[in-house]
Order: sequence, then structure tokens, then C-alpha cells
Amino acid sequence: MNIKERIKKQPGPLGQFADYGEGYFVFPELEGPIGPRMKFQGKDVIFWSANDYLGLCNHPEVKKADAEAAAEYGMFYPMGARAMSGETDKHKELEKNLAEFVGKENAYLLNFGYQGMVSIIDALAGKDDVIVYDIDSHACIVDGVRLHMGKRFTFQHNDIESFAKMMKRADRIAKENGGGILVITEGVFGMRGQQGKLKEIAAFKEQYDFTLLVDDAHGFGTLGETGAGAGEAQGVQDKIDVYFSTFAKSMAGFGAFVAADNEYIRFLKYNMRSQIFAKSLTMPMVIGGLKRLELLRTRPEIKAKLWENVNKLQTGLKERGFNLGDTNTCVTPVFLPGEVLEGTIMVKDLRENYGIFTSIVVYPVIPKGMILLRLIPTAAHTDAEIEETLDAFDAIHDKLVNGVYKKQAEALNMDYTPL
Amino acid sequence: MNIKERIKKQPGPLGQFADYGEGYFVFPELEGPIGPRMKFQGKDVIFWSANDYLGLCNHPEVKKADAEAAAEYGMFYPMGARAMSGETDKHKELEKNLAEFVGKENAYLLNFGYQGMVSIIDALAGKDDVIVYDIDSHACIVDGVRLHMGKRFTFQHNDIESFAKMMKRADRIAKENGGGILVITEGVFGMRGQQGKLKEIAAFKEQYDFTLLVDDAHGFGTLGETGAGAGEAQGVQDKIDVYFSTFAKSMAGFGAFVAADNEYIRFLKYNMRSQIFAKSLTMPMVIGGLKRLELLRTRPEIKAKLWENVNKLQTGLKERGFNLGDTNTCVTPVFLPGEVLEGTIMVKDLRENYGIFTSIVVYPVIPKGMILLRLIPTAAHTDAEIEETLDAFDAIHDKLVNGVYKKQAEALNMDYTPL
Repeated sequence: MNIKERIKKQPGPLGQFADYGEGYFVFPELEGPIGPRMKFQGKDVIFWSANDYLGLCNHPEVKKADAEAAAEYGMFYPMGARAMSGETDKHKELEKNLAEFVGKENAYLLNFGYQGMVSIIDALAGKDDVIVYDIDSHACIVDGVRLHMGKRFTFQHNDIESFAKMMKRADRIAKENGGGILVITEGVFGMRGQQGKLKEIAAFKEQYDFTLLVDDAHGFGTLGETGAGAGEAQGVQDKIDVYFSTFAKSMAGFGAFVAADNEYIRFLKYNMRSQIFAKSLTMPMVIGGLKRLELLRTRPEIKAKLWENVNKLQTGLKERGFNLGDTNTCVTPVFLPGEVLEGTIMVKDLRENYGIFTSIVVYPVIPKGMILLRLIPTAAHTDAEIEETLDAFDAIHDKLVNGVYKKQAEALNMDYTPL
Repeated sequence: MNIKERIKKQPGPLGQFADYGEGYFVFPELEGPIGPRMKFQGKDVIFWSANDYLGLCNHPEVKKADAEAAAEYGMFYPMGARAMSGETDKHKELEKNLAEFVGKENAYLLNFGYQGMVSIIDALAGKDDVIVYDIDSHACIVDGVRLHMGKRFTFQHNDIESFAKMMKRADRIAKENGGGILVITEGVFGMRGQQGKLKEIAAFKEQYDFTLLVDDAHGFGTLGETGAGAGEAQGVQDKIDVYFSTFAKSMAGFGAFVAADNEYIRFLKYNMRSQIFAKSLTMPMVIGGLKRLELLRTRPEIKAKLWENVNKLQTGLKERGFNLGDTNTCVTPVFLPGEVLEGTIMVKDLRENYGIFTSIVVYPVIPKGMILLRLIPTAAHTDAEIEETLDAFDAIHDKLVNGVYKKQAEALNMDYTPL
């Protein structure tokens, strides 16, 4: 069967939803300025799906910095890859400030987070090295590990017993090979909101010699006293050898950075293929990034407001009996029992009749028979928006337990079997 | 040896130059607005290293579009991944226009070209499929192929005999596996400027059943009557099943797109991991992209001016006896005999004493004993800049053949052995 025929027959885990869900459950089109209130299919909705934790995307100083930098430089500047012609003093300035902010010697900007992480792993892990990583790691980590020619072990999600077992194996093999060990986990697991067990993992450094790489996409700017992330929150920032965060969450932008000591950064800047062979991060995002980081550093009240909102939303949901799993971050997952179709009907009801827009996550990301509605509170949400959302959740919860959505799902008479 | 110790001892193919070359030969910092004249270390230079073929980065309409879009949307819009919350009507509009421009049914934007190509390959090539690709393919293609679990064959660069041999093997294995064949090459090989032999490769479709994927980064906007690229130039655009180009060259931006028929695009948008699990292309680049594409479509005089400059530069160099290899595109490589150190001294002379900035490419990208100076002419270069450059090349060529640089290299007394 040629490739064309196969892709028609096997649309993929998300592609199977295309006919039923495109434009609504997948690829929905929101309109209007980003913020807690947007438009979806002509209706006003309270929007809980932007990872703009600190609400910086609409901050007047940020908008001004972005606009002025774009007016001066356009979107092409600087020209090529950092190593060829894409180096500027602004890039270096942002790197210096980022390194200081997360308590590392040095930092390096990445033109995009996904490929940045892939290339960090690819550059660091030689063929004799062993990778040990959390099974729930983000797709970019998984793709990075997929490039590895040597051994790799996954440990059960946030499970230190499983981690210990894998480290024992990894250590034996690394010693046989004469290689090292690269341990990869996340500061915050973005779907379910759990912090990675960085403190427990770091404690293994007494026993084993390894490099610890942490993807702190959702922790950077939201966790720790200064906002330096999950490592700061757990008191082990200095045990993280290679710290990574995207700019696509708290920094309300795109691109990413990696921070570590000088030796790691020097090696990485010369060896990350997606950075050596592709264009430098665009100047407006670098100059805009300097402004965002300045706000993170100098306006602690923004993070305080975020956490006020997180606490209101999460406490409100818990008081109403909702299951938020074991989130200990801003990420607010609401776990509900139900099948996929049932869940989509509930989400539709929530959007159409209550004006609440959340993302829905289903099997295989979470177990069969569960629906996950994921809410991302931001500093920009108001008390009224939180209250309205809590009331709406109350209402749909009643309908869910009374089987209202299940009946509607059955009436659809669709033979939907999750792949 | 742990990872930290290893990276200290093995700095990598480019990292070996760090002490000698950083800030000058690698990671040079250009200053001032992008264009044919920039500043390097305080000196004015004629700049030949921006892939801004059409000179659009300084076009007033482009700068206006970028600035206005950034002022309205900032750099964060739209919020998340396309499938989650990153869909807008502007994204779809640009896709429609790109598809029309390259003569395909449909198109899909990519948040970054490098990871976009990696994920196209990863999505299309199933474990039973066989990949056949040119050995000189760009790093992003190589990384995509590295993710492939099944068989892959490289053919010698632009060598149709070698291609035929590999296709025969691939076809046998694909049939045994019940899989298909994915053939990957480039429209233009960016280092040496040769067009990929698309016409010859496409002719194999009469004999074998395969999907042809072409990376036309340097061809898009520069080749073919309408600028639709290398496929148009060779009369086989319709034989390219999956067409890819970055926005980082003619489009004077970043991000990329893939164009194909509806079935491929539908499959790809649901299955490219770097697009499903990472943020949508930022709005200012989408709106700026619409403007750039409009200029490509409606101002053929810009491409005509580019080619006028290409012809002046390449003819001038050839008349002066320089070896440009077999470029048949805008990419202008000047091959010179010499060792790495000699080449760097020549490049320094060129920059310091003649005010000409070019990139230098050495072993292992090209054979030992050769130096490649790569010039990218653009529509923005003037006759005077071309003349000045030709004169400078004359002067350094004399010094090179008279052994001036070689003597200086020997005087450095560096034990430099290329890795």
C-alpha cells in the first residue's frame, strides 16, 4: 500500500475526529483580542485555553515593545542562523538576563521551543549514554529521545520507585559503555498540572552521576518565590544541570531558552542542529522578551494576582466536589467520568449555553472512560469570570451525572470507537 | 565518562573553532539595518550573507504590514497550537494563497521550517515504508529521516544512476513490507546552488509508485516563471506530491509551509507532532506573509532585478576565472583551493581590507583542501556593490595563488587538524 492510500485509511489518533470535530473540538477558531473574553462562532465566551499565565500578552508595555521592535526591525531580523549571521547584542542581553533570572551561569536562546528541546537531547546524549525519562514527557522530549541511538528507559510518571529501578539499570549500562546518563523530566506536566518530582530525582545525585535536564515550560514565571520555576519552588534549582523553558506560556510569545553553566551552554550553542542550521529567533521577540522578563522580575504583583485567581478557581471547583487530580500548579484539570462523545456534547453545552470555552482532553492522553476539561487561569481573569465559570460547571455536572449527555450521545448513533 | 566530561573533550565539528573563530568566523555580529551594506566590528561591509533574495525585508509595504500587525496582535497571537486554540482566518487565507501560488490544492502553515520538515517526514513515513533521499539533504531532512523506524537509502548527490539503484532496492523492500516509498530531495541545494534533479526523479514515477517530497527553500520565489520554484523551472511542479518551503529566504521572515493535495494536507495537519504539540505561527508573520506573497505575485520586476544581479555577479566571477561549481540558481559559491586556516585568513582580509562580508564553508561540508565562499545576491544589491565585490575577489585571488595567505597561516603556527 503506498503512502497516499495508507494515510487515507489511517487518519491517525487526532485525525479520526476530523469529520466530527473539525472547527469545533479540534482547530476551533477564536476571534477578537486574546484575553479572558473572546468570541467563538460569533458568541462571547470566557476563555480558559490561553497559556498566557501572567496576562502579559495584553500588557501595554509588552504591546508597545513588540510593536516598536517590529516597526524598527520587521520580522526577518537578524538574517540567518546565529552561527552564520543571526547574532545580535540584544540576543546576548536577553540571554544574560534569563540566566540571572533562573540562577544559572549562562543561557542561550532557541528559535523555537519544540525543535530546541529535540536538539538539546540530540546534542547531549551520545551513543554510549543512557537516557532515563518520565513516560508522560511532552512530545518534544519524546522526539528528542527518539533520535537517540543508545539505550533509553522510561520511568512511570512521577514514580520514584520506578525511577530508582531505571536508574539502577541505566547506571549499569552506562558503566559498561563508558558513557553517561541523561535524566529528563518536566517542571510541570502541562496536562494534569503535577510538578515533576525534581527534589526526589535530584537526591539521586548522591548515588549516581547524571545530567539532569528539566523542561519547565509551565513552571517558568509561575512557580517559586521569584518565578524561577519548579526547581526554585522545590529548593533544587541548583541541581538542575540544564534548564529549559519556552516563551509560549508566561512569556506570552514564542521561542525558548536553555540555561546551564558555561560549559553546557558553549557546547549546546555549537551542537544543537536546529539552531546551527536554522534561523535565529526574530528580533521583535527578543526585544519583546526583554520587556516581558523585566515585568516578571519587577512586578511580583502580577504573579500574586495569578495565584489569587488559581486559588479561587481551584478552591471553588473542589468545594463543588470536582476532581482536580493532584495538580499543584496553575494548571487546572477537571476530571469527569464519561466517554468521548459524551464529553464532546458536554463541552458543546458549556460553550453554547454557558459561554465557557475550555479544552477537552480524552483517551489516549488520559484513561478510557474519563474526560479531562483543562482550564488555564491567568492573572487577567476577573472574579466575575471565575464565579460564572464555577456556576456553569455546577450546571453541567448535574447534567452529566443525570445522564443527560449520555442520552444525547446515544441519540447520535455514531459507532465511535477510540483508536 | 559522564556527559559533562565528554562534551568538554569533544566540542563537536563546529565547536572546535570556538577559541579561534567565535565572534568572527562563527557567531559574527552584524549591525545596522539588514541590507547590502551593514556594519561588522565597526566597519562598513558589503553584505552577501542574507537569504533575503528579493530584498523584501526592507520593502516599505512589508515593513508596514509587519509593524501594523505587531501593533494590533503583539507576538503571542494566536494563543496555542492550531488544533487547540491557534486557528485564525488569516492563517487559512495565507494557506489558500500559497497553495494557489505553487499550484497545489491546499497548503498548511508550519510554525518553524526545521521542525516542520522533521514532522512531515515523521508523519508520512510509516514503519513499513522506505525513504530514499539525497545524501546532501539539509539537516532538517536528515533529522526527519533519523526518526524513521524503517529502511532508508541515500543516493549520491544529484546522481540519477545512484538514485535508480536505490529505487530498485527500495521498491523490492517496500513490496516485501507492504509499504510505500517516500523520496526526498531539494529544489535547490543551498550550499552549492545546484537544483535538485526533480525532472529526472519525477520520470521514475512511470516505473515506481512513490511520494515525492521536495524542500524548495531556496527555489520558492526565485525560480520558475511565476516564482513557484524549482518544480516550475523544470516543468514538473505537478509531479511534486508534497512541496515544502521556508519563509526564511524569499519571504524574508520565518516559519514555513507545506503544499499538496487535500488528502496529504488533511493528514499532515492532524499528524505533524511539532505542529499538533506546539504553538501556531505568530500572527504578525502570517499577516506579513500575506503582504510578501502579494509582492511575489504582483511585482515580477523584483525577481527580474534579482536575476539581473545574479547574472552580473556570476558572469563577472566566471570572467575572472573563478570556479562557481555547477550552480544553476541564485546561490553563488566560489570554490578556491586551500586549507581551512588559509581560508579564514583570506576571509579576514576580505572583510578588513576590502569591506566584503561573505560566509566561509570548509571541510567537512566540502572536500578537504577546498574553501567555499558563499555569496547570496539579492534584488537589493547595486551595480556598484557588485563591481566592488568583483574587484575585491580579483585582489584576494592574486594573494591566494601567490601563497600570501598560506604563509600567514603557517606563521600562526597552529596545530589545526580538521575533525
